[in-house]
Amino acid sequence: MKKTSPERLVPELFAYADITVNGSRPWDIRVHNDLFYKRLAAGGSVALGESYMDGWWDCGALDQFFDRILQIRLDQKAKKSLKALWCGAKAAVTCSPSRFRAYDIGRHHYDIGNELFSLMLDKWMNYSCAYWKDAGDLDAAQESKMDLICRKLDLQPGMRVLDIGCGWGGLAAYAARRYGVDVVGITVSQEQVKLARQRCEGLPVTIQLEDYRNMSGTFDRIVSVGMFEHVGAGRYRTFMRRVRRCLAPDGLFLLHTIAGNRSVRFCDPWISRYIFPNSMLPSSRQISTAAEKLLVLEDWHSFGPDYDPTLLAWYRNFMENWNRIKHAYDWRFFRMWTYYLLACAGSFRARRNQLWQIVFSRNGVRPGYKSVR
Amino acid sequence: MKKTSPERLVPELFAYADITVNGSRPWDIRVHNDLFYKRLAAGGSVALGESYMDGWWDCGALDQFFDRILQIRLDQKAKKSLKALWCGAKAAVTCSPSRFRAYDIGRHHYDIGNELFSLMLDKWMNYSCAYWKDAGDLDAAQESKMDLICRKLDLQPGMRVLDIGCGWGGLAAYAARRYGVDVVGITVSQEQVKLARQRCEGLPVTIQLEDYRNMSGTFDRIVSVGMFEHVGAGRYRTFMRRVRRCLAPDGLFLLHTIAGNRSVRFCDPWISRYIFPNSMLPSSRQISTAAEKLLVLEDWHSFGPDYDPTLLAWYRNFMENWNRIKHAYDWRFFRMWTYYLLACAGSFRARRNQLWQIVFSRNGVRPGYKSVR
Repeated sequence: MKKTSPERLVPELFAYADITVNGSRPWDIRVHNDLFYKRLAAGGSVALGESYMDGWWDCGALDQFFDRILQIRLDQKAKKSLKALWCGAKAAVTCSPSRFRAYDIGRHHYDIGNELFSLMLDKWMNYSCAYWKDAGDLDAAQESKMDLICRKLDLQPGMRVLDIGCGWGGLAAYAARRYGVDVVGITVSQEQVKLARQRCEGLPVTIQLEDYRNMSGTFDRIVSVGMFEHVGAGRYRTFMRRVRRCLAPDGLFLLHTIAGNRSVRFCDPWISRYIFPNSMLPSSRQISTAAEKLLVLEDWHSFGPDYDPTLLAWYRNFMENWNRIKHAYDWRFFRMWTYYLLACAGSFRARRNQLWQIVFSRNGVRPGYKSVR
Repeated sequence: MKKTSPERLVPELFAYADITVNGSRPWDIRVHNDLFYKRLAAGGSVALGESYMDGWWDCGALDQFFDRILQIRLDQKAKKSLKALWCGAKAAVTCSPSRFRAYDIGRHHYDIGNELFSLMLDKWMNYSCAYWKDAGDLDAAQESKMDLICRKLDLQPGMRVLDIGCGWGGLAAYAARRYGVDVVGITVSQEQVKLARQRCEGLPVTIQLEDYRNMSGTFDRIVSVGMFEHVGAGRYRTFMRRVRRCLAPDGLFLLHTIAGNRSVRFCDPWISRYIFPNSMLPSSRQISTAAEKLLVLEDWHSFGPDYDPTLLAWYRNFMENWNRIKHAYDWRFFRMWTYYLLACAGSFRARRNQLWQIVFSRNGVRPGYKSVR
């Protein structure tokens, strides 16, 4: 074996994160196919995920594996030789996203997505981070999150609220029911429109198939939960301009988004290929730059560690309900979904990913914004 | 009188903010010298302040006057002709700061500053924004602010704390007394060192005459209150690098600073000339950019409106104690100080200026930062 062979370098790389190949601790990995090393060296992040999907390796606790890798920034910090091996491969993959496969998976995903998501998520179908302060289970934590948003927005009966990226209408329904507001929810997913309309029937909620760039009208409050990740760095400013244009003079806007510690214009290539095509995590710099001169910062709340238990709860629901939905999926999907949920849990635990709720006003709240947590 | 004469344009400009020249409402102004209009047109912000100091005009409630001017962004938004008049003059002044006079005033200020400040400020001598939630007077509001900082930093007995810009040692003494921490406070003012050492006697507090750029050692916690305003945009990154270098791996840093809504590299020229030479208010974009890849954002609290009652309380103390200190000052200083405190109160009320407490960690707090308000 050559000194710089992948068979030698990959285990060395993992050792920096105290991960032993074929070790016995929960975060150690067991390699079932010796081609794993070469594949990883050549394909980086994508190869790590794809080889897992193919069953070439296993791990007792993938979330702990990723926590260890990401906590010490193994992908960024490994010794020069290893880094060249790792990042060279990563860059190669980053530069060649397989659009075709992404949309293929996208379709695959949405065709029967509603069943999967209704079994995996809480009863309001929030597909975003829950708030676990004072909450014991997922339903309570998601209600707590929705209530937190409503209180931060200081919702009053009769207010007009715009929900950009309303998903299956959970927040719209909650706000209409509990706070007596009128909600317009927009989403670009036809499947979500259908189910959201059902779930909001009888409430003062309008669900529209609409892109945020086409929004018009004036709203007392605007909220966007878990949608900014799909906007893309090149359009952050456009997004903020549109928000300002649709916001009443004394209006408030709450942005709930996953975020990263660095300003980037790309996403992890495996996530981009298999889970969220064209997604991108904003940095505080990018958000501040996009909002400058358009909106006044009122409050910035960070609770990324709450995504860890949220994702683990989704994973538990996914596992417990697998028998009810497996007719529609294959084994590779099962492994892909497992990998997705647990890798994300690890990345939030490692504090590589963040979750922010940012409140902006249009002109500065007078006499002052009362922050709630 | 020509159509575009200052005598005509200046009152027109004020009228946009519903301010009447020689009107009788508290925010109206009374002009005592007809040269005021020409002076203002030629000298912008500096002339407005200097002509007030010279007694050329008066106002029943300067804070309300500035609130009106700044709320509608009169300086930025007035009609083209007025704007050209106003901004042209402003730019001319911005570009020619009188260094000599600034330092002259600086010396004048600090020579007998301690007496003035001890009578104007709360009993701990906090020269920064107080926290008025649940507080009825300045002493209580400043204690509430200091306690808020200590709780946000999760201070534990025995921790080593660095206070960058420690002023007269109020926070250092409070944290040492109430939270049992060891504090190193640094300031670049010799007068502050002397008084701070007296006030912290017998406590585990070390006060050093030191620039932040020379700091070394490792601290569990770093705090900087009301000092970042003097760092200057060109050195924000240097500041954050130094903070990171001095912070323990699981350390926290709290930045308490006045801020602005826009990224600028200059300050109001009157403030710069008479009150704080070379000060500059950071934007969220500038702070985020400076901290990127060095620190992880944990919490961002905005409570600028609390500076309004803080400044009014200082103004009240200043007025009530004027007879005790007037031997050391002249009438022009009295008007300068009045103008300074009330103009600032108005600018916070108008939400043109912000007050931020931002908590950063070195590497991301695990399992998660518990925000307190």
